[in-house]
Amino acid sequence: MRIITISREFGSGGREIGKRLAEALNIAYYDSEIISKIAQEMNLDENYLNNIIEKGIHNFNFHFGNSFNFSYNQTAINVLVTQQKIIKELAQKGDAVFVGRGADVILKDYNPFKIFVYADMDYKIKRCKERDTKDNSLSDKELIKKIKQIDSNRSKVHDLLSNTKWNDCKAYNLCLNTTKMKIETIIPVLANYVERWFNH
Amino acid sequence: MRIITISREFGSGGREIGKRLAEALNIAYYDSEIISKIAQEMNLDENYLNNIIEKGIHNFNFHFGNSFNFSYNQTAINVLVTQQKIIKELAQKGDAVFVGRGADVILKDYNPFKIFVYADMDYKIKRCKERDTKDNSLSDKELIKKIKQIDSNRSKVHDLLSNTKWNDCKAYNLCLNTTKMKIETIIPVLANYVERWFNH
Repeated sequence: MRIITISREFGSGGREIGKRLAEALNIAYYDSEIISKIAQEMNLDENYLNNIIEKGIHNFNFHFGNSFNFSYNQTAINVLVTQQKIIKELAQKGDAVFVGRGADVILKDYNPFKIFVYADMDYKIKRCKERDTKDNSLSDKELIKKIKQIDSNRSKVHDLLSNTKWNDCKAYNLCLNTTKMKIETIIPVLANYVERWFNH
Repeated sequence: MRIITISREFGSGGREIGKRLAEALNIAYYDSEIISKIAQEMNLDENYLNNIIEKGIHNFNFHFGNSFNFSYNQTAINVLVTQQKIIKELAQKGDAVFVGRGADVILKDYNPFKIFVYADMDYKIKRCKERDTKDNSLSDKELIKKIKQIDSNRSKVHDLLSNTKWNDCKAYNLCLNTTKMKIETIIPVLANYVERWFNH
């Protein structure tokens, strides 16, 4: 089974890489579909769910072996638990690319090919502004704050599930800096690399 | 000008990647040649020089803006200064792959393509034992100690020259985990990726 996971900094183009890579390899691609399934299963509105995920597990500070802070967001935790279940169910269906959502850790038993996508802040700002009118209406300062906030949540969720750090290359098979790169041009090379890895 | 730098954990196959990549791209490759040139310029024996470099700048603890610890190794520092000069001279000759020696930082004005090569410890042990009879005679524990020591020196030299951390993916364009990979199979893909990056 070929499972590929993509962890990515917000604005780095990770989602586009995931989508195009899945097309190139002709395998399934899971991203927002996961959210829809959680919404359905938990009987929650998708927008409300996205809002919870964006806000993260803020109030949930878990200091392993030291202390617990119980002011956590119970709904956020329920969402994470349901997400884990859904990701495992999707993986059972066969070869796929999973973008974000801690799939690299959740699916570790499948020995996935794990990619981390990142970029310089200037590039991420440019990319966000070009692709989202909502981001385009923000000042650079506001957008940087948003990017850091989302990445901080991603990092916290990852680090809750794993012994490795979210942005530590050691946790991945390949780390791609997309700064100044055209994503379309990366895909054939990346697909080739991934295929060689699965055939090793 | 196409300058490619390869930073690598000891035993990860970074040197082999550098050598083969330079062959694939038909450009110069600099590694031990740098040591020979330093030896010549400083009128030092190559073995003695290798020994100094392997031992690192141990005694030189430089706490920027806080305090200085003057028990540093003056010869090691002279070697680093000479190395910088030689790396810059070699870069002026044209396209090249530089392995290690902080070339990614020293040659930053050339906007090099910067690769970091790493691997799981088990793989590095296996690789070292297969390739070096000296390493093969060490116990796993001794070899791990050696690997960590050399990487710690590489890290210290890098961090002396740079604001970024040696093993932080942010400092590189691409980070390759060679665990279980056959290096020959990576090269055509990597050469393709690097060419696309220089043509972007």
